[in-house]
Amino acid sequence: MHDITDTPDDGLAALLQPRSIAIIGASRDLNKLSGRPIKFLQRAGYAGAVYPVNPKYDEIAGLRCYAAVADIPGPIDLAVVTVPARAVIEAITALGEKGTGAAVVFSSGFGEMGAEGKKLEAQVQAVARRHGMRLSGPNTLGLINAFDGVYATFSQFANGATPAGPIGFVTQSGAFGTAIAALARQRGLGLGYFVNTGNEADVDFVAAMAPVLEDPRIRVGAGYIEGLKDGSGLARVARRAIQLDKPMVVTKVGRTDAGARASASHTGSLAGEDRVFDGVVRQFGIVRARNETALLDMAELFATTDPPAGRGLGIITQSGGAGVLMVDRAEELGLAVPVLGEATKRSLHDVLPAFGAAGNPVDVTGQFVADPSMLRDSVLAVLEDPDIHIAAVWLQLMHEFVEPLVEIFRQLKDRATKPFVVCWVAAPEAGLTALREMGVCVFTGGEPAVDAIAGLVELGERRRAWTAEGEPAALPAPAALQGGAGVVPSLEAAAALTKAGVPLAETRLCADAEAAAAEDLGYPVVMKIESPDLPHKTEADGVRLGLADAEEVRAAFAAVTAAARAYEPDARIAGVLVQATGAGACEMVIGLRRDPVFGMVVMAGLGGIFVEVTKDVVFRQAPVSEAQARDMLADLKGQAVLDGVHGRPGVDRDQLAVLIAAVSRFGAANADRLSELDLNPVLAGPDGAVAVDWLMVLDGDAAE
Amino acid sequence: MHDITDTPDDGLAALLQPRSIAIIGASRDLNKLSGRPIKFLQRAGYAGAVYPVNPKYDEIAGLRCYAAVADIPGPIDLAVVTVPARAVIEAITALGEKGTGAAVVFSSGFGEMGAEGKKLEAQVQAVARRHGMRLSGPNTLGLINAFDGVYATFSQFANGATPAGPIGFVTQSGAFGTAIAALARQRGLGLGYFVNTGNEADVDFVAAMAPVLEDPRIRVGAGYIEGLKDGSGLARVARRAIQLDKPMVVTKVGRTDAGARASASHTGSLAGEDRVFDGVVRQFGIVRARNETALLDMAELFATTDPPAGRGLGIITQSGGAGVLMVDRAEELGLAVPVLGEATKRSLHDVLPAFGAAGNPVDVTGQFVADPSMLRDSVLAVLEDPDIHIAAVWLQLMHEFVEPLVEIFRQLKDRATKPFVVCWVAAPEAGLTALREMGVCVFTGGEPAVDAIAGLVELGERRRAWTAEGEPAALPAPAALQGGAGVVPSLEAAAALTKAGVPLAETRLCADAEAAAAEDLGYPVVMKIESPDLPHKTEADGVRLGLADAEEVRAAFAAVTAAARAYEPDARIAGVLVQATGAGACEMVIGLRRDPVFGMVVMAGLGGIFVEVTKDVVFRQAPVSEAQARDMLADLKGQAVLDGVHGRPGVDRDQLAVLIAAVSRFGAANADRLSELDLNPVLAGPDGAVAVDWLMVLDGDAAE
Repeated sequence: MHDITDTPDDGLAALLQPRSIAIIGASRDLNKLSGRPIKFLQRAGYAGAVYPVNPKYDEIAGLRCYAAVADIPGPIDLAVVTVPARAVIEAITALGEKGTGAAVVFSSGFGEMGAEGKKLEAQVQAVARRHGMRLSGPNTLGLINAFDGVYATFSQFANGATPAGPIGFVTQSGAFGTAIAALARQRGLGLGYFVNTGNEADVDFVAAMAPVLEDPRIRVGAGYIEGLKDGSGLARVARRAIQLDKPMVVTKVGRTDAGARASASHTGSLAGEDRVFDGVVRQFGIVRARNETALLDMAELFATTDPPAGRGLGIITQSGGAGVLMVDRAEELGLAVPVLGEATKRSLHDVLPAFGAAGNPVDVTGQFVADPSMLRDSVLAVLEDPDIHIAAVWLQLMHEFVEPLVEIFRQLKDRATKPFVVCWVAAPEAGLTALREMGVCVFTGGEPAVDAIAGLVELGERRRAWTAEGEPAALPAPAALQGGAGVVPSLEAAAALTKAGVPLAETRLCADAEAAAAEDLGYPVVMKIESPDLPHKTEADGVRLGLADAEEVRAAFAAVTAAARAYEPDARIAGVLVQATGAGACEMVIGLRRDPVFGMVVMAGLGGIFVEVTKDVVFRQAPVSEAQARDMLADLKGQAVLDGVHGRPGVDRDQLAVLIAAVSRFGAANADRLSELDLNPVLAGPDGAVAVDWLMVLDGDAAE
Repeated sequence: MHDITDTPDDGLAALLQPRSIAIIGASRDLNKLSGRPIKFLQRAGYAGAVYPVNPKYDEIAGLRCYAAVADIPGPIDLAVVTVPARAVIEAITALGEKGTGAAVVFSSGFGEMGAEGKKLEAQVQAVARRHGMRLSGPNTLGLINAFDGVYATFSQFANGATPAGPIGFVTQSGAFGTAIAALARQRGLGLGYFVNTGNEADVDFVAAMAPVLEDPRIRVGAGYIEGLKDGSGLARVARRAIQLDKPMVVTKVGRTDAGARASASHTGSLAGEDRVFDGVVRQFGIVRARNETALLDMAELFATTDPPAGRGLGIITQSGGAGVLMVDRAEELGLAVPVLGEATKRSLHDVLPAFGAAGNPVDVTGQFVADPSMLRDSVLAVLEDPDIHIAAVWLQLMHEFVEPLVEIFRQLKDRATKPFVVCWVAAPEAGLTALREMGVCVFTGGEPAVDAIAGLVELGERRRAWTAEGEPAALPAPAALQGGAGVVPSLEAAAALTKAGVPLAETRLCADAEAAAAEDLGYPVVMKIESPDLPHKTEADGVRLGLADAEEVRAAFAAVTAAARAYEPDARIAGVLVQATGAGACEMVIGLRRDPVFGMVVMAGLGGIFVEVTKDVVFRQAPVSEAQARDMLADLKGQAVLDGVHGRPGVDRDQLAVLIAAVSRFGAANADRLSELDLNPVLAGPDGAVAVDWLMVLDGDAAE
């Protein structure tokens, strides 16, 4: 067991690796939720002291039962509080006075019940904090540390046998988390930790995941998230996971607007924008699984199999069709299914039957049952190919050939120098068990296997990128953003952005049409009304694009000022901005937002019709490095637009990334004042990227 | 058993419901592939005569074994041919001479082996045809009719118990099909028919599916497809399925370009474009499932549950998070998760615990185990809501509450007036079995349940639309398309299209600049070079858009003729076309193609950047009704563009659908001559849609 005295752990070792456990309100009925922890602890052979507390009994299940916390002879690391909500404060107070390290509060009737409950929860938390006691819950199913036999839970999951294993699982949902844990058990996947965080009065998802990842017996952190409070904490724990070389995979619900609304109504808190969450977990190398099955698929794969060095997938099947289905999925997920090299094909031709297929997928046909080495040698040949980085072997049924097949995979495990997985459809149970016991990851379908492989590839890529590129460049000095809350005048904003290294289209403010016509920016130019009262120039019909000569500029000056006056008669008009633009460029939208969970975030998206119809934007926590900014561009669904369409030249992604990174550093440096920045459009082309219009909004007041 | 003499069935009753079966090349080793059919037939209690044929034996498994086919005393409905490839012709000849109805040919060594094998296959097929004998295979695992104990197969699947059931399953893949069948068995889903079509020398996917659907014991046709040959046949069988009110669901691999390439290499045939397949199955009310699991999910749902009357999904869970995940998926798939009406909420408040949630999803919390009627009454209340058309109930574990839960669902099945499904994660086996036995569809995860429900909704919508709208309008008379293969001159093509009711932008051919400047079409106009030698005008820089006055028209005339001469000095230039255009319209691409599988197909897509980047086009077999054309528009991923973006007005979908339907009828009427038609762009706006440019290509020669 962990020695809590040696570790600066915020008291969480007392929660997760306790040397003694008190059960407050313990029942003699070991099937009641207040009795179950005793049953579970005894069954698991928990080595520490267990102290039931209940004035009604002298003894429960052979253990001495104490009338009060104060009567317990030894120190208490962890208390499990099972009393009704109204009695919790008294229990926590007694525990605090006793010097208890941590408490898991099963009791419901707190924040989930509305305002009254919230108040009570805050009081409980205040008492615990006063005594330096960590609190998990209230309204939690509790936690399990299966390595050390710690069962501070009443979850149905603990009714079954729970093999300890390399997965640490933290869940914000009790019921769904229990179901996920039960599914893990069904596939023989051992959870070393199961932690339900309940109402998160104190220990939240991030606080629980951090010490779980530190446990050397844990190889993968898996999480189920409904709404995160501590975005910076997630980033911190993700970076630590990278240091520890432990993959993290999470499922978060509320992907869609409708789902986010349902989630907010369920959790009672606004969860921040899902697209921001999605971008930030990518940024920090956490893989997101779309549902509970994918979560477990990836957890199992990550625990058994190293990330491949690239995206090249080799597929070996006994059915051409199943191979095609996997190719389809690989293509959809951006994996490569490379054509095999000549040398590989020659090796395969030596191995395969005449009607087998030596392409990729390789079809070994049913013939391999007559000569199982054919399967082994095919997989080895494919893995030898320099363009192949990971292999997937697809099988079905074969109930009569479990032993030779298991032997083949044992040999492959010894000899293969690149990772491989097995998909075994309608598999004999004995085959699945044997493969899992030898540490071969096995799926029960081709498509889920490809999904998980794509997650493993992503894990490898994001983590390699993180290691290679290091932290983003230093932040610039904060800009002297003057004035109160609201829109910053265009030219003032321009000055601040330019100083921060954000390239803007060259812009002149002209007071009259003749001055505008006399500008020498080169044609075509853009003209835009400039008024502190008209932040949204387009709505005011105050923008003209593609003006080809001085004559058009004069006409446009008159048109935009007239339009502005028509739109808002009292608007103070400072003049008209004249701007140079590049031709044939791609419209982008780049911006900054202050996210309630992750703080200042940078956004990049395709502009024009794309941003409206496809909502194709990507977020990261600011600041980002230029490499991370390129990664944002690669994450855009419509990224092909950047390579040039309709005969237009492609965009210089490096220079666009320089702009995004500069914007992100500006955002991070000015996080205290900046509410929002929109560069829309940014025109990006083969020769660079410039912002053509910008809207900067401050909140609060300038620190004078 | 079916009486084949009464039914005009193309001889397929002999294949699928035979009264007698001969096994050619029967083995005494009942585990060898040539022995297994005998074992399977005996185990299944097949009531017809079984005639093993093998000169080496007098008796096999208690049956008299015949030296030759001619020795068999009675008539043979079905022969199972298990002899080596080289002996197949002789066997088929003997069977033909005996008057055998049909043969299943297990033997491999035919088309799958290359040119030699293809030749042999054609010879075998010729012999069979000469004798009026139907042929399944060669290179097939065979077929099962589980109702009548017909096991003309050596598939591993037949090793297990095979309950007959309402699903008829036809598969082009033997190995993958066997795996799918085994997965069906794992979930207790009975396959009435299992038919592997092998090389499809004669009986192909469509030919096999048609009689399976006719069997009154079959409720759902399920298929696995790698490459279809007979597109018209699929349309025919799909229409018949609608008449019979039997849903069809298929999985087809080769969704992506990479997958299609892999599939072509696997099946040795070019499969036609997947997007065409995808569009045509939608057109005819066949639901496409993305993989084997989804196929079985939908087959089970379709067999047990009627399509809902609308898209409103009510979700009842014991975990808020699981509900959110289902909302996410519903939103992604275009289902509605409506806010519940006030009356529904009041009903729920009477039923639910204080901390339950009466929104949608409804969270009954774990409390329902204390009072299971709470679950029942919640589901009934939700289903009473006028905006809810189908409900999904999510549960987990509950091993101790199987009986009360099963009772609740029994009551629900009796009382509910709208369909519902159950998702039971990590369910007790007894619960799954009991629900399935009472005909309640049960899934083991929330997301797969929503996927399948979306399929059921689609099934209902497409079939209702089909029934409501009837057949497309009558075809116009074929156009007098003169000339040989190649591009039809613009004005000639325009005349044909106009006659067919396709609205084109008004167009004049002008011989010189002054004539062009004098046209009175109203400005702006488009100008395009007209030359039989320059079919691709844009590439020749022969197009100018948005010309605002006569001056610009004169300049454009000079520019496009000069550009055309520079591009192709010898081009015969007929003049320049001047065209009126609508302003602010949405660019579409509408066209016709001759598909190798489905014949003439009509295409609709978003134009400009969308068609290039997102490949967002939808196909249907021509002709389509206007309602089907509207359906095509609704299937576009970027269909929101049609409702107006960037402040542009929306498109009149009805008028655009009129254009598409007219194009489709033109295509169907001229299917023998037309190779390709591209209307690009079609400009669609609030006032209608017109084609601005068109390219019509003929093949073959005009029938004079």
